[in-house]
Amino acid sequence: MFRTRVAGETELGLIEHRHARELFALIEANRAYLRPWMNWVDQRRNQVEVANYIANCMKQFALGQGFYMALWHANKLGGMINLSPIDGISRATPIEYWLAENLQGKGIMTASCRAAMDFAFDTLGLHRLTVRCAVENKRSRAVAERLGFSFEGISRDAEWLHDHFVSHAVYGFLRGDKKPVTSP
Amino acid sequence: MFRTRVAGETELGLIEHRHARELFALIEANRAYLRPWMNWVDQRRNQVEVANYIANCMKQFALGQGFYMALWHANKLGGMINLSPIDGISRATPIEYWLAENLQGKGIMTASCRAAMDFAFDTLGLHRLTVRCAVENKRSRAVAERLGFSFEGISRDAEWLHDHFVSHAVYGFLRGDKKPVTSP
Amino acid sequence: MFRTRVAGETELGLIEHRHARELFALIEANRAYLRPWMNWVDQRRNQVEVANYIANCMKQFALGQGFYMALWHANKLGGMINLSPIDGISRATPIEYWLAENLQGKGIMTASCRAAMDFAFDTLGLHRLTVRCAVENKRSRAVAERLGFSFEGISRDAEWLHDHFVSHAVYGFLRGDKKPVTSP
Amino acid sequence: MFRTRVAGETELGLIEHRHARELFALIEANRAYLRPWMNWVDQRRNQVEVANYIANCMKQFALGQGFYMALWHANKLGGMINLSPIDGISRATPIEYWLAENLQGKGIMTASCRAAMDFAFDTLGLHRLTVRCAVENKRSRAVAERLGFSFEGISRDAEWLHDHFVSHAVYGFLRGDKKPVTSP
Amino acid sequence: MFRTRVAGETELGLIEHRHARELFALIEANRAYLRPWMNWVDQRRNQVEVANYIANCMKQFALGQGFYMALWHANKLGGMINLSPIDGISRATPIEYWLAENLQGKGIMTASCRAAMDFAFDTLGLHRLTVRCAVENKRSRAVAERLGFSFEGISRDAEWLHDHFVSHAVYGFLRGDKKPVTSP
Amino acid sequence: MFRTRVAGETELGLIEHRHARELFALIEANRAYLRPWMNWVDQRRNQVEVANYIANCMKQFALGQGFYMALWHANKLGGMINLSPIDGISRATPIEYWLAENLQGKGIMTASCRAAMDFAFDTLGLHRLTVRCAVENKRSRAVAERLGFSFEGISRDAEWLHDHFVSHAVYGFLRGDKKPVTSP
Repeated sequence: MFRTRVAGETELGLIEHRHARELFALIEANRAYLRPWMNWVDQRRNQVEVANYIANCMKQFALGQGFYMALWHANKLGGMINLSPIDGISRATPIEYWLAENLQGKGIMTASCRAAMDFAFDTLGLHRLTVRCAVENKRSRAVAERLGFSFEGISRDAEWLHDHFVSHAVYGFLRGDKKPVTSP
Repeated sequence: MFRTRVAGETELGLIEHRHARELFALIEANRAYLRPWMNWVDQRRNQVEVANYIANCMKQFALGQGFYMALWHANKLGGMINLSPIDGISRATPIEYWLAENLQGKGIMTASCRAAMDFAFDTLGLHRLTVRCAVENKRSRAVAERLGFSFEGISRDAEWLHDHFVSHAVYGFLRGDKKPVTSP
Repeated sequence: MFRTRVAGETELGLIEHRHARELFALIEANRAYLRPWMNWVDQRRNQVEVANYIANCMKQFALGQGFYMALWHANKLGGMINLSPIDGISRATPIEYWLAENLQGKGIMTASCRAAMDFAFDTLGLHRLTVRCAVENKRSRAVAERLGFSFEGISRDAEWLHDHFVSHAVYGFLRGDKKPVTSP
Repeated sequence: MFRTRVAGETELGLIEHRHARELFALIEANRAYLRPWMNWVDQRRNQVEVANYIANCMKQFALGQGFYMALWHANKLGGMINLSPIDGISRATPIEYWLAENLQGKGIMTASCRAAMDFAFDTLGLHRLTVRCAVENKRSRAVAERLGFSFEGISRDAEWLHDHFVSHAVYGFLRGDKKPVTSP
Repeated sequence: MFRTRVAGETELGLIEHRHARELFALIEANRAYLRPWMNWVDQRRNQVEVANYIANCMKQFALGQGFYMALWHANKLGGMINLSPIDGISRATPIEYWLAENLQGKGIMTASCRAAMDFAFDTLGLHRLTVRCAVENKRSRAVAERLGFSFEGISRDAEWLHDHFVSHAVYGFLRGDKKPVTSP
Repeated sequence: MFRTRVAGETELGLIEHRHARELFALIEANRAYLRPWMNWVDQRRNQVEVANYIANCMKQFALGQGFYMALWHANKLGGMINLSPIDGISRATPIEYWLAENLQGKGIMTASCRAAMDFAFDTLGLHRLTVRCAVENKRSRAVAERLGFSFEGISRDAEWLHDHFVSHAVYGFLRGDKKPVTSP
């Protein structure tokens, strides 16, 4: 209940307390896969840390400052898409996404982000979405480009990733920007 | 997005900040209709009070202590169904519901409560639901009875309703209780 | 100081931080005796948990939402009587009570609850008191009945007690209800 | 209930939310009388300010940092005696007191402070009480001296009283200090 | 006291509660001058709003999440330089600055930002500073360029400025980047 | 930056989070030296406790209730001078100070307190400073007397110092009191 079907077996829904066990298991199973580009992996090392993370997501949601979505595929948790922090004045938000290794290559993340973008523009009434990811994170950049985001520049050394700095590729998408045609 | 279709044009979804204006308009339009049995009507007199009410709903949700659902019909807000306060130890919660006057008599509330009950038992894993309403509130009692709730007793003078006490009829429904067959 | 003599050597007074040690010792001494009907016993396993419990009682008191009384007999802590949560709108509150094993059978709890009831009606200005206890908890039900509470129904499976559900017998007493005559 | 008889018709009890109306009326009736020595009089100008003051007293009490007692005479509120802020490490607290004009000259405050001192030493286990009042506040100093407090010095310009500084006479009383004999 | 001399009569120091009156007067005097590029001008319309702003600055400072500096010239408040929000993991912070109209054109802001940059790198140990300002805000961009910041891209429609969106020019400066030589 | 030069190599500046390590090391190195007169030494036993202490200092500062200054000598942390709690109504504050053993006997504390006093009177606009220290703490009393504080009395048994009570010598200094002439 309270999930939105994105395409085929893929759904999005708010992350909630009751997903803590499944989210921890998913991170645990994908830890090595996610770690090269996700600095938060080392801050969610056990179920307590994951439960605290979810509690914080829900608190930000309750404050109207974020929207944290679990991505479900075939009824199993498979990743997350977060809109946070939402700037209510300038009607803008970063969008962040990650997907389990075994779901890669099927167009799941692209379709899901498209749904999240519609939600951000049509339901939340936002004006601008930003994607930031490491310059060398090709997979993540490919998603942004497939979604029609425009490249807007490089933020040098913007993130400390475990043991070194990485520069961020910055992309923006405005309400009304043209979405690429998708082949079915 | 993030609504669950209950039946026909009826959907349920979490109440959120962005619904404040529509919720206030709905209460305003149904104030005279709701007031005889709803003591909260006089505490949501303007948009600020309604916004504060929603903020509190979302806070309780974020704490895992309540689930506050807006009922949508033909894409317009038409009522609410709340599970609150949720007792995580005894896995029980009261269920409260109200519906706009113009949607009465169409089976909308019964179908929606049935969906909320499924959500409470199957998704939240609860064990017991309680309905409490004024003994003389025939419409509300009829909903509970149609849903298969068992009458469990009368709480005398349990609620101060504007200017007098009313006694509550108390109903319970346990996971596994038999649901009445519905005619389509 | 600040205790009210109930009868003979029995007194009631607000529970405070400084009682933590004595309250823990009392619970410890009565753990096996209380456990069959008190699900909170397993949440007050050490002095820190008991101190946190008292801190929470005092916080609720400070918010005007509860009144947590220690029962003293011959100057020793012997049980508690709590009015909580107090509903200021409907002027109602549950009343909960428990007594050490060695004080049973002397009319201490009945006399003390009678004093607490007078306090609730005359001092706090409440209108309704509710007692809820497990259907099979004969001793607790006997107290309610001796106090003149009316039986109002059964809440099926209302409480998770360690490892199984128990149904609650529900009793109510309204301001002005007749109190049974007590033989001295 | 929960008051302690001090002497004759005089009692002490914790101040609570429900006393707000009576406390405000008492301050209002004694405003001109109290104002020359009490700088708080101008911060409790209406019932909301008095209710907030009581809420703060109860909060400090719940935190174990203060004890705020209403003084009752012939069942009517007549003044206050506060132990605050309580220093739990050094087991010391200031004691403050004020009494309505119409109760002056009857030994009520002296008897009540004596009871509060016993409470502080015997029940709270404190070691030292301090009285501070304006050097020219003869009535207040007389109470301290009658209670057996020792004069310990003058704090120059220690308090801003409406429109000028006043110096404080400082008195101390230690557990075990000799209490003056009282004539009945 | 607690100010650092930047150059000549120019000093920097933490903003504090006691500056509220002077800060409000400065904003008031420069409201028309600042408003075209500063969206916060309409949120600091009176002394209460300015006092709340300072309280929030100090709270963020106390949490280690920001550093809010008043700029003093000839002992009079003349602008602000803020480092906020500070990202302790990636050791990065935006730097924001504004200066009163009558102090423009004297190199005051450039010298002050240079001092703030030294503070950020040498004292706070940060690694990256970001400047974001409206593309058309020539004066602000000139400061960033004079300070040696590198242009990193354009964030389209990144800010709602009173009644329209403006795009941001984004600049970065890393610890170790070359600072332009200054002519005296 | 943001330090004020007191004299020679001695400076004062707000204590901040980033000083936790150095403050802990200083306390550790002077633990035996400080312990006879400082009861807080046993509450700052490790870096976490020291970090919490600093967090609390900054929080009080942010609330306008205290000013906590680190004393630097030759660029190394050497002690602290605190103004806390500041009474904004009566414009008064206690002043507390302590200095590392290796910096004693050089006039450093006297000069630094003099600077802190100027700050309290001229910048914060206070009217009265109080020094309280154990009667037998000759070194601390000598500082107060050298600064021109007037002896105002003895508070008997005012402080629990590890395992016994000590009486406090109380000193006051009012804005406008005569400062002793200092020989260079």
